[in-house]
Amino acid sequence: MRLVGIDPGLLRTGYAVIDASRPMAPCLIEAGLIRLPPRSSVASRLVQLHDDLAELLSEHEPGIVSVEEVFVNAKFARTAVTMAHARGVVLLCAQRAGARLVELAPATIKKAIAGNGQATKAQMQRAVAAQCGLATPPKPADVADAIAIALCACLRGARGR
Amino acid sequence: MRLVGIDPGLLRTGYAVIDASRPMAPCLIEAGLIRLPPRSSVASRLVQLHDDLAELLSEHEPGIVSVEEVFVNAKFARTAVTMAHARGVVLLCAQRAGARLVELAPATIKKAIAGNGQATKAQMQRAVAAQCGLATPPKPADVADAIAIALCACLRGARGR
Repeated sequence: MRLVGIDPGLLRTGYAVIDASRPMAPCLIEAGLIRLPPRSSVASRLVQLHDDLAELLSEHEPGIVSVEEVFVNAKFARTAVTMAHARGVVLLCAQRAGARLVELAPATIKKAIAGNGQATKAQMQRAVAAQCGLATPPKPADVADAIAIALCACLRGARGR
Repeated sequence: MRLVGIDPGLLRTGYAVIDASRPMAPCLIEAGLIRLPPRSSVASRLVQLHDDLAELLSEHEPGIVSVEEVFVNAKFARTAVTMAHARGVVLLCAQRAGARLVELAPATIKKAIAGNGQATKAQMQRAVAAQCGLATPPKPADVADAIAIALCACLRGARGR
């Protein structure tokens, strides 16, 4: 069974595909970024995001798609609202692809992957590299985040939570 | 040329279709609500919203789709983030349908339709009824809002703004 983690954004959406057939030993198949052209309208970026994601999900046919829960901080409310446009399209694609959606709190992901709910981006990148046996930490952070989301969903599934 | 105004939401999305061939005398063709089942997951509601909207836009082939600009108030940040999931799907559908997107500030719409940027919901419902020659104010408010958004986009187009 494959599992896809997604870190949505209107400029860069990170994704990671994991083979979860052995849930306690997840294996990274592919990870990368969907880059959207910053000078295009939001609407045309959403179309591109939809099409690229639909293609990815159609290729891998994941049983689970995992994303972060929405974290709304009044100070960064505008950023959260902008991101939510992309998140809506991600949920649409996941549902259409027949995947089960797993939503995880940011602190839960950090704790599961780096052992610390307050881990920094650099700590998360190193932890992800160690867990996946990568020679160097994945960059940019959006990709590392997507891998962490996928790994966490996989490990929680393995532990039956 | 037809013009569609949309007031996005994850439970109720109001829409209004206007004939804008005589922009100073817009004519209401159809208005209503897309109701989404409150007990369904957000992802499955987004799929239904997408499909219903895509059908509406395919039927009317609007040249313009109009929505409110995102208004982010720290106090209602969570509501805005929730709504933005639906708004992302609306923008996706509008772009796919080949419509030009017109985004209008809430105060601009209220001023254009009710003559007062701070108009209440009841005032907007009455103003919309008067402008469209309806016997009674449109209900619920989501429908009146969608009509107001469409009327405002139409009038602004007529005035070349």
